[in-house]
Amino acid sequence: MSFNSFGHVFRFTTWGESHGPAIGAVVDGCPPGLSLSEADIQPFLDARRPGQSRFTTQRQEPDQVRILSGVFDGRTTGTPISLMIENVDQRSKDYSEVAAAYRPGHADYAYDAKYGFRDYRGGGRSSARETASRVAAGAVARLVIPEVTITAWVEAIGGDAIDPAKFDAAEIGNNPFFCPDPHAAQRWEKLVDDARKAGSSLGAVVACRATGVPAGWGAPLYAKLDAELAHACMGINAVKGVEIGGGFGAAALTGEQNADAMRPGNDGPTFLANHAGGIAGGISTGQPVMLRVAFKPTSSILTPVETITRDGEASDIRTKGRHDPCVGIRGVPVVEAMVALVLTDQKLLHRAQIG
Amino acid sequence: MSFNSFGHVFRFTTWGESHGPAIGAVVDGCPPGLSLSEADIQPFLDARRPGQSRFTTQRQEPDQVRILSGVFDGRTTGTPISLMIENVDQRSKDYSEVAAAYRPGHADYAYDAKYGFRDYRGGGRSSARETASRVAAGAVARLVIPEVTITAWVEAIGGDAIDPAKFDAAEIGNNPFFCPDPHAAQRWEKLVDDARKAGSSLGAVVACRATGVPAGWGAPLYAKLDAELAHACMGINAVKGVEIGGGFGAAALTGEQNADAMRPGNDGPTFLANHAGGIAGGISTGQPVMLRVAFKPTSSILTPVETITRDGEASDIRTKGRHDPCVGIRGVPVVEAMVALVLTDQKLLHRAQIG
Amino acid sequence: MSFNSFGHVFRFTTWGESHGPAIGAVVDGCPPGLSLSEADIQPFLDARRPGQSRFTTQRQEPDQVRILSGVFDGRTTGTPISLMIENVDQRSKDYSEVAAAYRPGHADYAYDAKYGFRDYRGGGRSSARETASRVAAGAVARLVIPEVTITAWVEAIGGDAIDPAKFDAAEIGNNPFFCPDPHAAQRWEKLVDDARKAGSSLGAVVACRATGVPAGWGAPLYAKLDAELAHACMGINAVKGVEIGGGFGAAALTGEQNADAMRPGNDGPTFLANHAGGIAGGISTGQPVMLRVAFKPTSSILTPVETITRDGEASDIRTKGRHDPCVGIRGVPVVEAMVALVLTDQKLLHRAQIG
Amino acid sequence: MSFNSFGHVFRFTTWGESHGPAIGAVVDGCPPGLSLSEADIQPFLDARRPGQSRFTTQRQEPDQVRILSGVFDGRTTGTPISLMIENVDQRSKDYSEVAAAYRPGHADYAYDAKYGFRDYRGGGRSSARETASRVAAGAVARLVIPEVTITAWVEAIGGDAIDPAKFDAAEIGNNPFFCPDPHAAQRWEKLVDDARKAGSSLGAVVACRATGVPAGWGAPLYAKLDAELAHACMGINAVKGVEIGGGFGAAALTGEQNADAMRPGNDGPTFLANHAGGIAGGISTGQPVMLRVAFKPTSSILTPVETITRDGEASDIRTKGRHDPCVGIRGVPVVEAMVALVLTDQKLLHRAQIG
Repeated sequence: MSFNSFGHVFRFTTWGESHGPAIGAVVDGCPPGLSLSEADIQPFLDARRPGQSRFTTQRQEPDQVRILSGVFDGRTTGTPISLMIENVDQRSKDYSEVAAAYRPGHADYAYDAKYGFRDYRGGGRSSARETASRVAAGAVARLVIPEVTITAWVEAIGGDAIDPAKFDAAEIGNNPFFCPDPHAAQRWEKLVDDARKAGSSLGAVVACRATGVPAGWGAPLYAKLDAELAHACMGINAVKGVEIGGGFGAAALTGEQNADAMRPGNDGPTFLANHAGGIAGGISTGQPVMLRVAFKPTSSILTPVETITRDGEASDIRTKGRHDPCVGIRGVPVVEAMVALVLTDQKLLHRAQIG
Repeated sequence: MSFNSFGHVFRFTTWGESHGPAIGAVVDGCPPGLSLSEADIQPFLDARRPGQSRFTTQRQEPDQVRILSGVFDGRTTGTPISLMIENVDQRSKDYSEVAAAYRPGHADYAYDAKYGFRDYRGGGRSSARETASRVAAGAVARLVIPEVTITAWVEAIGGDAIDPAKFDAAEIGNNPFFCPDPHAAQRWEKLVDDARKAGSSLGAVVACRATGVPAGWGAPLYAKLDAELAHACMGINAVKGVEIGGGFGAAALTGEQNADAMRPGNDGPTFLANHAGGIAGGISTGQPVMLRVAFKPTSSILTPVETITRDGEASDIRTKGRHDPCVGIRGVPVVEAMVALVLTDQKLLHRAQIG
Repeated sequence: MSFNSFGHVFRFTTWGESHGPAIGAVVDGCPPGLSLSEADIQPFLDARRPGQSRFTTQRQEPDQVRILSGVFDGRTTGTPISLMIENVDQRSKDYSEVAAAYRPGHADYAYDAKYGFRDYRGGGRSSARETASRVAAGAVARLVIPEVTITAWVEAIGGDAIDPAKFDAAEIGNNPFFCPDPHAAQRWEKLVDDARKAGSSLGAVVACRATGVPAGWGAPLYAKLDAELAHACMGINAVKGVEIGGGFGAAALTGEQNADAMRPGNDGPTFLANHAGGIAGGISTGQPVMLRVAFKPTSSILTPVETITRDGEASDIRTKGRHDPCVGIRGVPVVEAMVALVLTDQKLLHRAQIG
Repeated sequence: MSFNSFGHVFRFTTWGESHGPAIGAVVDGCPPGLSLSEADIQPFLDARRPGQSRFTTQRQEPDQVRILSGVFDGRTTGTPISLMIENVDQRSKDYSEVAAAYRPGHADYAYDAKYGFRDYRGGGRSSARETASRVAAGAVARLVIPEVTITAWVEAIGGDAIDPAKFDAAEIGNNPFFCPDPHAAQRWEKLVDDARKAGSSLGAVVACRATGVPAGWGAPLYAKLDAELAHACMGINAVKGVEIGGGFGAAALTGEQNADAMRPGNDGPTFLANHAGGIAGGISTGQPVMLRVAFKPTSSILTPVETITRDGEASDIRTKGRHDPCVGIRGVPVVEAMVALVLTDQKLLHRAQIG
């Protein structure tokens, strides 16, 4: 067990605060002999990087990753891979307000309640900045599962969903919202702009699909593939819900409606539906693994909210500073990374037991 | 890591198959000196026990638990507590059909794909029978967190939800559905009866509330309280979704709508709302911990479904035998147990680090 | 982490006290498809079983193991294997003396200091009886590493060592001491008899050799093969020292004397010596893995020893009852089991990372 | 589980190779609120630092540690503490010989056998340089157990032992050998000088004592205090043996000779001896924890040794370069660090379960 590690045999540990000198991850258990350089990781960090459009926080971080260990002559050696990302744009501002009062919805009060005090600069350890470490670790994980293709996208912002019939994966990279439906992307431009200008924020739903996962990955009963995915995704900042396959929708169906009938196929069965989201009994079935993740609206808003100070006095707080109007957008590469990390770990667990 | 263990410092390991001689759990890390006997565990097993109404499977299992270790003179000793429940009603039936073909929605195909073969009698290890072990372990966990009260209930069956305004916790034990709204309970009687008679099945949503959790439990970042709850609940048989607090609903809100404002209170802040479900930054806030769990409809239905045989031939299968028409109902004590197990583990983790 | 579990991916958990109804182990992570029945385990339990000669405790325990889960149609299914051994000969005696005062050298005082009280009947959880669970688990492990042959023996009793030149593995089973040197076995007969009659006890050194371990097993840096073996063996009751290869002897050598030169061989190098005990850098080299384990003399002796009571009063105590005059003898199958368990775990860890 | 992490709730992960840009450790689970700066760590690194006398390797490394996270306003925050030490003196030399042939006694062959290739520059990950990370992590651990005083020393070099009657802890810092007996220190000067000049090397025994450990620490049965110490110390480079208390000497004693009688004391019992080394049943007794660790002679010697090349050809190898003539000497601060790390982890585990 470890508070800041994740995974069983492909395991990563992250460290670092929003406004410290750097953040990073140590990836342990990576198979040897894989070609790896910073160039394999950087594109994923770039996708998550802030400041790329007006729809994300304006903090300017190049998020340049450095590999400090575990690679020799361009290949992984099987020893721990230390990844470091320097913090560059820790704006020297006055934190006295955040230090003195709790921002509702943030981790401020909970951290103080647990640890007795907290690093209040930019949210410290609870900042979404930490997710850059996950994305970097996830980029390494992808190299271990080349048979798998992971694609995430935003499915809804502020309750405005894409039209599933218009889903086009090729569109995801064509707009600042990771939106697979160009009409929705257009609507969201105004939606998010309005929220941003109003100092408000919006929730979002991110969906993710992993194809190429063979049947048999998953470690029942207490490291089930779906349970591990739920753990990984619920642990992302601002996430409040996770669904596999049909999710809450399945709870409203009958057994007949929810059945994924099977027919003989060329390589394993052909499934006539995928309500299961590619997982049965905690084990992959060979169908695409499908999941959905609910991001709450960013808690940092300009509207004053009632709160209390560290001393327990009544107060109001407006969260100024540079914030994402919809934190779910930048959640897309993070969800992808967490899915990659879980699948990689399960692949290695599988071959530990099965060979 | 372990495939069949759960928890970091309060850790349990389960074993056993549906039709083997027994099932059980080993609970490790329990504090010493707690009063414990079978009588502390049995009521929770009785709540989960099948065959108590026509709305659950008719398999007759007394589910009598035996404590085989870890207790001396009526008190826990701090050593592992071995709990065993004998299987009594393994009906000797003909399993040739299930052995030969895969039941869609079940773990059959996935287990075969992973392990090469499977114990097909009653679902073997993938049977919901295993959850009796969780409930027994959860009963022990409750003794470690007497400050916490955990209550779960069914919130919806087949899409028919309770009226939140009619919520009455005292009603939960008064009907066979763990339903807090007597009107809904009445409707569900016909709903589930119809499904049962038709050989069909229904999904359900289970909600759970834990009060008395102090602010500060949770181990960020990769053993966050919400992530651990999601892991625990997504790992229950038939579960396809987990929400904390506002869940997917929060994804449709603005920051203002989702804010849980704070006012000075007697003992910590008074929160004006609980969209967060009692958890911020992965740490409890002192508010009630709230979560919702989606159960899919039982996959075992009498309607024939297309499937394939072990040899890859096309076939049809009807799942005869004794099955729950709505597996979510008996999920209620299981959800409670998993929540108890997570909270206990987090309490001990908290005092490991904080003292 | 778990207090009562061992192993990373091949992991077992033990439970049970000396005088409870039973003891047992849950073996998790076992590969599927291995032929397994009680008959594969029983011989190893029989080798450890007490009461077989006058040189061990006279407690009569048949140590019949039952497999309660994880096996179907005679093969392991990949799910947890629950092993149970009933306690039969818990002699109903008066424990008031042991309950009231601490036996020097035993865990009595330490358990009370930690847990506040203890199960004093026969030593409770700290009894060497628990090692039967390890031996049972180890028998399962051996099935996973058929390429490896593990042989342990007693090398010295009470300071009287075998003559290495007379080592004959075939002799180990021919005497009640697991002694590979028939002359030493003869001497030990009188030595142990004298100690037994005097109500005294003797320490012993157990050696173990594992051949067939391929080069490459071991998980540096913090799950090194030698570190895991040291962990496994130091955790056996009464063990106070562990050596790999040259051990403490190597500390008195020069680099030249300690070098294991290599020459080209048919299948990997031919080593000209094995000071390393088959392990370099925490990884197996393909040479036989060699280790030595020091067992202290049984603390239970008839000579009165000064002690204190639970209330802190001065007292004398003589440990009556049925005890091994040399607990190291029955340590032989336990050392073998622990070595098998470590090697199996490392084999699976190796293939997790390397494939 | 993790290959490169150690500890259960106070857990550290190390990374880095001898000739990479840096090495480091991430310390997780540290209690919040402890005063911590680089100045708390540096003295321990300085004690281990090479190049301080002619009796250690001449590699010049300032070993300046940087704290990159987990500390705010001079106090630990409870979040992971990232420690980094830059490698400065990676002498650009010709490694072709080491790359092509295996140095007997080193990890070279085993790493190649496991991973298929290796970072051969200075031993890569298997270099003793990694122990600087342990020492840094150990310095943090010491802050968590201020009640404990840990002192290690060299007890013997090349078979020449100190005179226990002359033991003077104050002398340990007065000579380059961490030797508590000034006469032995004088003898060792010539002994090690001779070995160094001859291009040879010597083994050593390091002893360690931890006072102030209260009775009750230790997590039986599979995280016993003695087993954890054995694991921690056997995992140090070049270690081949670990003893607790009487160790192998106890195996030659009778029960009477080995008994640690108890008398009433002011605060717990007064023990009349400490053959147990402060640990019974895997739990501390309140006596000083005593252990001994055997270091083999450095494998790097100038005398040519027979070996094979990567291609399996016969060859001779002389290990040139800068090496410790007696690696056990610099093992002293490493043993202290590992003992501190184990005790800290056990303290936190203890309070997790006991409160």
